[in-house]
Amino acid sequence: MLLSQLIGERYREKPGDATMASHIFMLRGGYIRQVASGIYTLLPPAKRITAKIEAIIRQEMDAIGGQEVLFPVVMPAELWRESGRYDSIGSELLRMRDRTGHDMLLGMTHEEASVHLARSEATSYTRFPFMIYQIQTKFRDEPRSRGGLIRVREFTMKDAYSFHTSQEDLARYYEICHKAYERIFARVGLPGIVSVKSDTGMMGGKVAHEFMLLSDSGEDSLVICPHCGFSANVEASPVRAAHEERPSRPVRKLETPHCKTIDDLCALLGTTPDRTVKACVFAVEGRRKPVVVFIRGDFEVNEAKLRQRVGADVFPLADSASCPDICFGFIGPVGFSADADVWFDATLEGEKDMVCGANEADLHLSGVDMTPEGLGANWPAGFFDLAKARAGDVCPVCGKPADLRRGIEMGNIFQLGTKYSASMGYTYTDADGKPQTPIMGCYGIGVGRLMAGICEEHHDDYGPVWPISVAPWQIHLCAIGGAKDPAVAEAARQLYGELSARHEVIFDDRNVTAGVAFADADLLGVPVRVIVGRGLGRDGTVEVATRDKSYRENVPLDGVPAAVEAQIARLTAEIG
Amino acid sequence: MLLSQLIGERYREKPGDATMASHIFMLRGGYIRQVASGIYTLLPPAKRITAKIEAIIRQEMDAIGGQEVLFPVVMPAELWRESGRYDSIGSELLRMRDRTGHDMLLGMTHEEASVHLARSEATSYTRFPFMIYQIQTKFRDEPRSRGGLIRVREFTMKDAYSFHTSQEDLARYYEICHKAYERIFARVGLPGIVSVKSDTGMMGGKVAHEFMLLSDSGEDSLVICPHCGFSANVEASPVRAAHEERPSRPVRKLETPHCKTIDDLCALLGTTPDRTVKACVFAVEGRRKPVVVFIRGDFEVNEAKLRQRVGADVFPLADSASCPDICFGFIGPVGFSADADVWFDATLEGEKDMVCGANEADLHLSGVDMTPEGLGANWPAGFFDLAKARAGDVCPVCGKPADLRRGIEMGNIFQLGTKYSASMGYTYTDADGKPQTPIMGCYGIGVGRLMAGICEEHHDDYGPVWPISVAPWQIHLCAIGGAKDPAVAEAARQLYGELSARHEVIFDDRNVTAGVAFADADLLGVPVRVIVGRGLGRDGTVEVATRDKSYRENVPLDGVPAAVEAQIARLTAEIG
Repeated sequence: MLLSQLIGERYREKPGDATMASHIFMLRGGYIRQVASGIYTLLPPAKRITAKIEAIIRQEMDAIGGQEVLFPVVMPAELWRESGRYDSIGSELLRMRDRTGHDMLLGMTHEEASVHLARSEATSYTRFPFMIYQIQTKFRDEPRSRGGLIRVREFTMKDAYSFHTSQEDLARYYEICHKAYERIFARVGLPGIVSVKSDTGMMGGKVAHEFMLLSDSGEDSLVICPHCGFSANVEASPVRAAHEERPSRPVRKLETPHCKTIDDLCALLGTTPDRTVKACVFAVEGRRKPVVVFIRGDFEVNEAKLRQRVGADVFPLADSASCPDICFGFIGPVGFSADADVWFDATLEGEKDMVCGANEADLHLSGVDMTPEGLGANWPAGFFDLAKARAGDVCPVCGKPADLRRGIEMGNIFQLGTKYSASMGYTYTDADGKPQTPIMGCYGIGVGRLMAGICEEHHDDYGPVWPISVAPWQIHLCAIGGAKDPAVAEAARQLYGELSARHEVIFDDRNVTAGVAFADADLLGVPVRVIVGRGLGRDGTVEVATRDKSYRENVPLDGVPAAVEAQIARLTAEIG
Repeated sequence: MLLSQLIGERYREKPGDATMASHIFMLRGGYIRQVASGIYTLLPPAKRITAKIEAIIRQEMDAIGGQEVLFPVVMPAELWRESGRYDSIGSELLRMRDRTGHDMLLGMTHEEASVHLARSEATSYTRFPFMIYQIQTKFRDEPRSRGGLIRVREFTMKDAYSFHTSQEDLARYYEICHKAYERIFARVGLPGIVSVKSDTGMMGGKVAHEFMLLSDSGEDSLVICPHCGFSANVEASPVRAAHEERPSRPVRKLETPHCKTIDDLCALLGTTPDRTVKACVFAVEGRRKPVVVFIRGDFEVNEAKLRQRVGADVFPLADSASCPDICFGFIGPVGFSADADVWFDATLEGEKDMVCGANEADLHLSGVDMTPEGLGANWPAGFFDLAKARAGDVCPVCGKPADLRRGIEMGNIFQLGTKYSASMGYTYTDADGKPQTPIMGCYGIGVGRLMAGICEEHHDDYGPVWPISVAPWQIHLCAIGGAKDPAVAEAARQLYGELSARHEVIFDDRNVTAGVAFADADLLGVPVRVIVGRGLGRDGTVEVATRDKSYRENVPLDGVPAAVEAQIARLTAEIG
């Protein structure tokens, strides 16, 4: 391809609203253009990259027995009413009416469509297990898109759905898919992606993992233990609090006027938050009774965990408008008698001599023990893990200090169970002729986000450094000064023909300065660069270099193809 | 791939609502399943076929300098308001609101998106010409979908847009694209597709061609001249009426009570429709005045031609409710004085001694000549081609009898001109530094419909006969009686490994009867079939045959790969 014909202007200025490297370089390099908030057109370099990513994904999905299908983008509301998601999902699901007045929607994932297909095609146990997948456009009406292709409304996604006759078989295949994901990420140049346990959220199901690219610009917080390898999304990470043994002390009632926060309380009493008990109140979707969570004062409640535990969505309450019998600011576990569901977080287990609210305005208690004696009638049946992991916490597995890192989600896998198959009435006949409900897994990778993630991981100050497996071209050929020196132009043209026969070559045939040519080459990030210029007249050589700066050599003109070949082979081998 | 694992049940019964062969076989063969009216899921065999079609399209688009991009499916209404299509297109454009209340729509074509991209990326004459294309999901809210994938609401389409600095350059590139289309259709196995001149419809522009698969089940009527090669959609075909020279005769007023139709009139007067003048009245969108078209009684008005001529949409009127000064049933060109725009169709030019309405109830005139003398003050400035072509008409080019055939549109190309670039304010700077408006062409192929069209053209009574270039697999391997005869099972398994190394093989590894195996093989339509069965024990041979019945041979087991290779090479060479 001739660079002079490539559609997509490149420019030097930093786009005003972009902060992430991938966003900046993909705008500056002519990869993407915004059409509306979170809706982009992909230009030729981006389309070439995504095509390669898709080919790698396809190979790995086929290798684990995946069968490619294509579900519709536009689906009838009926299907989503069957699963219950038409009503349970909010405004990120884009709904519309067709010309005949039927409720339709734009697919954000395709569990419903996959069950719709499978329930007519696989009705005997002999057909199981199987996995179907597609690579297709999806729409999710995100309230705030950000970071170019990192968080968008319209996106191309590989989504896969597997169907099984037992939980064991799902767990077995889930592992196979986990390994396929590791291969995919390694092949696109992201071997460092970590899989972390995640919250299953609106997808339902019990076990889920996210594949995270560690990056300071990521939106997700991850607990990662450098000692034992444990990793989890903060949303899903168990919390193990460091615990200080203290003797019991007598209970005293303290005047604490206007001390409604843990900070106020600690300032007044000269204590620290880890020696206090905090109460957090939540309304629960569809229920009258609120939930009260008692937790150690230095922790926050993880709403994702609470949602899982309660089995419904929860919303923090800040005052007693909807629960007049709760004394906000002074709630405590001793003598608490309001009409609420009460949970005790595991951070409180075994703590002694704590300060907590006295359930009366402007009063607290000190010397409260989290023991049957200390809590009396309110001693709970159990302590549950409801806290949000913090930097500096110890690893919940090995007990050594864990890291808190930021990450960008590049893919996810879920053990869905029977959420969709049961709600949509999908059964198959087992070996005994009895109807059974299939057990499902689902597996997603966002293609555009993966491209952006590769750029986040592989760039320098001047542009992307695309791994050779996904680069838009393998070779960037420049003719510097070709307009003045016919020998340069002719040599470059010949090389273009020769190299194009075996590789994808972008040929900068323009009459521009070396500065412009190199800046553009940096923005296109092509792995191997061939520069025909002054060296040709000087000593008959051409410069061959790699974008990642690992190699640079002046090569005699007739040695260029071999030198290029060697570098392509080396870079390819490095990806593995 | 093992047939036992293939998702998609096959069945023998004809689906109740299907009449077209492609619809029947693609349902029966497990290629497609309907999700909603005109919305389908593609199953693995169909997905494999469309992937091959897309690869061929991509190669041919790249070969003529196309650059692949990806436009959004969901677009903001603003873009379509700029072009005017947001308001001019009816309910086939699916409109919706996003969560912030913005008007959005689902793309049915992407002229607007292509101009949106090009106007920021190509602003100097030095960037022209260029062509960008995509292969992507589109939605058109068709009032009646039909024929499986022949007419759907959601579909995958290759749409291309070229940009030029002159009409000559567009015309040059249009020819290049026309040839690329011929190659695409030939390569997918449809060399017989004809290109016909077409109406430009809602796309705008002046010159357009449709690529038509001739088929009795087609919705389009085509004029095709077997003598000179002329071809056109009936909508766009000029009409040349056979004309009989007759002497003038005196004008007479005739009592024709209740004779409101040409048939009534001919019956009463004992004449033929070609000796009468018919008047057709139309309302015009956005205008007060109706249009009256005078046309020979044996022809109908072609509304597409009239729309083009009038420059607005037209709707037939059947009574005088909205135009009281027109005497419906007795309208004639002599003395016609109602407030209307009057057009004379070319079929009337030079006709003499005609019967026409007298513009009074129950009265007609005979002996009227279509001459300045005969028509007096109503003698028109010209006669225009507004008639609908009929079977038996003569070719408008060579004058010999032309055929009227039915066809299915497989693709189209348009010389758009500046309709979109001008309305959307796209200019580039020419060599003199002056702003100019680019001239556009656009070029579409529906991928799913093309797959269905291939099936229409290539099938027998038992299923599709896929051309090898697009077949879901090249080889269908059956083991007949493998459950009872371990030698058969083992030979088949070995062949599967050997053949899979070089080709795509579907292996029927099930324990089913030969009848079931062959019926399924017919429905999958794979070009080369290898049947391991009784021959193996009898004389050590395996049957190799082709789906199109052009070849069938019993081959020694170790000769199978060579025999298969030879057939694949032959079938591939036949496609060219």
